[in-house]
Amino acid sequence: MAKPASEPIAQHVPVVAVVLAAGFGTRFDPDNPKQLVAVGGKPIVCWSIEAFEQCARVSDIVVVVNPKVRGEVESLIDEAGYAKVRVVIDGGSERVDSTAAALDTLAAAGIPDDAKILIHDAVRPFVAQSAIDGSIDALDQFKAATVAFASTDTVLLTEDLGDRKVVKSVPDRPNTYRAQTPQSFRFATIRHAYDLASADPDFHPTDDTRVVVDYLPDEPVAIVSGAETNLKITTLADIPTAERIAEQLLGRDAHGVSGVVGRGAVDPKEEARARMHALLAQAAGQMRR
Amino acid sequence: MAKPASEPIAQHVPVVAVVLAAGFGTRFDPDNPKQLVAVGGKPIVCWSIEAFEQCARVSDIVVVVNPKVRGEVESLIDEAGYAKVRVVIDGGSERVDSTAAALDTLAAAGIPDDAKILIHDAVRPFVAQSAIDGSIDALDQFKAATVAFASTDTVLLTEDLGDRKVVKSVPDRPNTYRAQTPQSFRFATIRHAYDLASADPDFHPTDDTRVVVDYLPDEPVAIVSGAETNLKITTLADIPTAERIAEQLLGRDAHGVSGVVGRGAVDPKEEARARMHALLAQAAGQMRR
Repeated sequence: MAKPASEPIAQHVPVVAVVLAAGFGTRFDPDNPKQLVAVGGKPIVCWSIEAFEQCARVSDIVVVVNPKVRGEVESLIDEAGYAKVRVVIDGGSERVDSTAAALDTLAAAGIPDDAKILIHDAVRPFVAQSAIDGSIDALDQFKAATVAFASTDTVLLTEDLGDRKVVKSVPDRPNTYRAQTPQSFRFATIRHAYDLASADPDFHPTDDTRVVVDYLPDEPVAIVSGAETNLKITTLADIPTAERIAEQLLGRDAHGVSGVVGRGAVDPKEEARARMHALLAQAAGQMRR
Repeated sequence: MAKPASEPIAQHVPVVAVVLAAGFGTRFDPDNPKQLVAVGGKPIVCWSIEAFEQCARVSDIVVVVNPKVRGEVESLIDEAGYAKVRVVIDGGSERVDSTAAALDTLAAAGIPDDAKILIHDAVRPFVAQSAIDGSIDALDQFKAATVAFASTDTVLLTEDLGDRKVVKSVPDRPNTYRAQTPQSFRFATIRHAYDLASADPDFHPTDDTRVVVDYLPDEPVAIVSGAETNLKITTLADIPTAERIAEQLLGRDAHGVSGVVGRGAVDPKEEARARMHALLAQAAGQMRR
């Protein structure tokens, strides 16, 4: 396929971030969805979207929401002028349903098989640019990768013995990692894994990597270095730690390291629509190769 | 064996806490060993010792130190008047060496086979009384138990592929726990496991539970509920979180929930010596059953 010389993004394939903001954490304040809580004065979902806005190699962002917060999330996106957000879609009741919804949308848009898809939990607001870059790089060598952080605690694998959990095995600590996000895949790979998984009604993974590991066992999934600060905000008890990290990051902002997102000169919603059309056209072209 | 009616501890067997303070964390400030750093105005090692002092069911405490900090730790114990500390012994270069040293000391003291041994990392200063009680209770049903906290992150088990870590498997999240301490054992059980392990020069576990799991695979190890606050202080970055937890606990202290440790009316060192003699005598009696 001939690539138009004027294509704004230098890389060969689209790099699409899918920001999953559909969870309705039952362990959190039920009246105040955690992805909308502000830390460092900014809603958690905005931190996550901005991480991908700031990475020049990410071409497009898809945001997956719970229908109950759609209005608020759309307002936040409009106000901040996130130029790469192409579409806000409704997720499902479980994490896998939300990922599946995003994959269906991308398939309907005719995204190419070799597009790089970075799936990120919105409630991990402090993902580092190095983790995003590392994920994009890893997909040049592997078809799947996940950001993960080496466990400092020994991990125990358990089983049930009556009404009690007992230890089944203790894996070597250097080979135990705590999964973080983004979890990244070539589009055809994650799509294929989800197709296989959808035939299994008992499959409810908490993790996209697992879909590949379990259904495409011959496909190695690379580990990309995460960080302790890439924490998942699960309960209200996580907020003080999150505030401290936000404070550190905003301190850096004042010195110009981040904070590149601002209102564009053009209407961001108009621009986003135009770019979604461009994406669709580009994707449709690449699909035919 | 006839039990003397005047025995001060109501329970049948000694309950010995082994506080491991021998680590010299290379990830921490090398000039300031982490177990001596103060949080909430109190050295970390003191928090850990006090947790077992405060539990009425714990009869004796053995503290394992690095020879370099022995003087300071002994001074802290004397100043605080910890009445249950029987002996301060030198640990080894690895965690297993320190546990082995404690087990040798207990064996030399003729401690009974069914004594309950609670092995605790000094750098987990905020262990809850419920975790200690739960450990002692679990040993009525099991010969080994460990405090552990259910992982909120998905755990990935990895393997090496060239110079890269790749995911080998993704265990079910409800069956993944992060090991904490205390890890508790009937004395004969942990002693037997260590005897078997000592024959294997390649065995360097980071965890006492693993010694039992690997060398006595038919012996179930029960999980006792831990808590997020029972954190392991590994790097300087953990100190702000530790300070916050200390603040909360000290706030509770002001309302009389804890803080039971104070100077006794008698010279604590003298009392400790007397009690070690009593322990030895009691242990020697019980060994013959």
